[in-house]
Amino acid sequence: MPPNHLFQYSVVSALMDGVAETGITLSELLTHGDHGLGTFRHMVGEMIILDGVIYDMKPDVSVKALDKDACAEQTAPFAMITDFKPTVTASKQIPSKDDFTETLSQLLPATNNHYLVYRIEGTFKSITVRTTGGQQSPGESLAELGKRQVSHTLHDIKGTIVGFRSPAFMQGISVAGDHLHFVAETRDSGGHVLALEGEGDLKVSAARIAAVNLQLPSDDDAYNQAKLVRDDEGIAAVEG
Amino acid sequence: MPPNHLFQYSVVSALMDGVAETGITLSELLTHGDHGLGTFRHMVGEMIILDGVIYDMKPDVSVKALDKDACAEQTAPFAMITDFKPTVTASKQIPSKDDFTETLSQLLPATNNHYLVYRIEGTFKSITVRTTGGQQSPGESLAELGKRQVSHTLHDIKGTIVGFRSPAFMQGISVAGDHLHFVAETRDSGGHVLALEGEGDLKVSAARIAAVNLQLPSDDDAYNQAKLVRDDEGIAAVEG
Repeated sequence: MPPNHLFQYSVVSALMDGVAETGITLSELLTHGDHGLGTFRHMVGEMIILDGVIYDMKPDVSVKALDKDACAEQTAPFAMITDFKPTVTASKQIPSKDDFTETLSQLLPATNNHYLVYRIEGTFKSITVRTTGGQQSPGESLAELGKRQVSHTLHDIKGTIVGFRSPAFMQGISVAGDHLHFVAETRDSGGHVLALEGEGDLKVSAARIAAVNLQLPSDDDAYNQAKLVRDDEGIAAVEG
Repeated sequence: MPPNHLFQYSVVSALMDGVAETGITLSELLTHGDHGLGTFRHMVGEMIILDGVIYDMKPDVSVKALDKDACAEQTAPFAMITDFKPTVTASKQIPSKDDFTETLSQLLPATNNHYLVYRIEGTFKSITVRTTGGQQSPGESLAELGKRQVSHTLHDIKGTIVGFRSPAFMQGISVAGDHLHFVAETRDSGGHVLALEGEGDLKVSAARIAAVNLQLPSDDDAYNQAKLVRDDEGIAAVEG
């Protein structure tokens, strides 16, 4: 796909409805870009895609890079990926996740109703992550998984955040607002970012998404039968 | 784009918010397919795209085919288009629009949460169409235009319907449910379909949409500032 075109497989509402039995193979996913995030079959673990490598991040914050064989075998019930070519790059102090929201809006003005993609690199005084532990029964909803989620705070850690911002009107299709996954430079810890505190200047690179390519699950009975009703509170609770 | 990939420019909520000052050029739109529907600048008229030709349908039900020069100059603030390659074709009696809803669901089962594209060809005992007359002031919402819409019923008329079905969870992005535009075989009348009564067997051809490519307006202040809040009742009133 052209640079900064977003490819998204399935919709967040399907995860909320527990549709996570099958999905797109990771090797097919990688044909659509090099920078992204998502989850794995049965929502076991968080996915971060950095420079074309897929990392599987576990509830104990450990991380595993997936090789070609693993990517050919495994599937993702939800993922977002793009061929990331930043159009703006800046050094910024980022005291908190909320501050980053404002910083990004300043770097890419007049993009209120657009998707954005970005990367944050540097050292974090602290970063709080969580990773879902997976469905305990078939069809269990992401909201239920969220109730069991355990967060971990990592301190004085170098690493990279992969993020997407989705417009408010796309809530339920994507996660409205900022959605960030982190992986340490040493590639041995990471997860879905709940909070962060940057140390000194961090490198922020970003671009507006030029177009969104949405692929909905085919031949998936659970998807076909899902209600897919937008659940604002449920998404905020588990993806906030 | 590959067959049956939907290209959509902008979102229906933007029309509801009156965002119709600019858009995609019609010639660019045609690079994405040969079968579609939409509206024109300032929401003056309804668009139907049939076999790669764009027709401009006016509030008095008259129709004009647009040539290359017109397509290079004019813009659409909203449109859906695909390179249509039907996967099912059938002869069906279609006593009403509601009957068609059921017929299509039978032709393409287990597609409740998918986009569908279709064409209906044949003779109609009656078909009731309307076409919006355009904004009377900049930024006027589609809901306001809808209040002024006048419908016309055509009798014993041969022609073609171009339609898309969008899943319920995409309401506001697209028009949830069936969205049909009609043009007569003689290409001198047509519009947005409110009701229909088929005469004998009609030819229905259809396919499931394989992927959705959504392009959001760039460099459009009105779009950037729009609220884009989903308005279920408003959309039903004007697109029903």
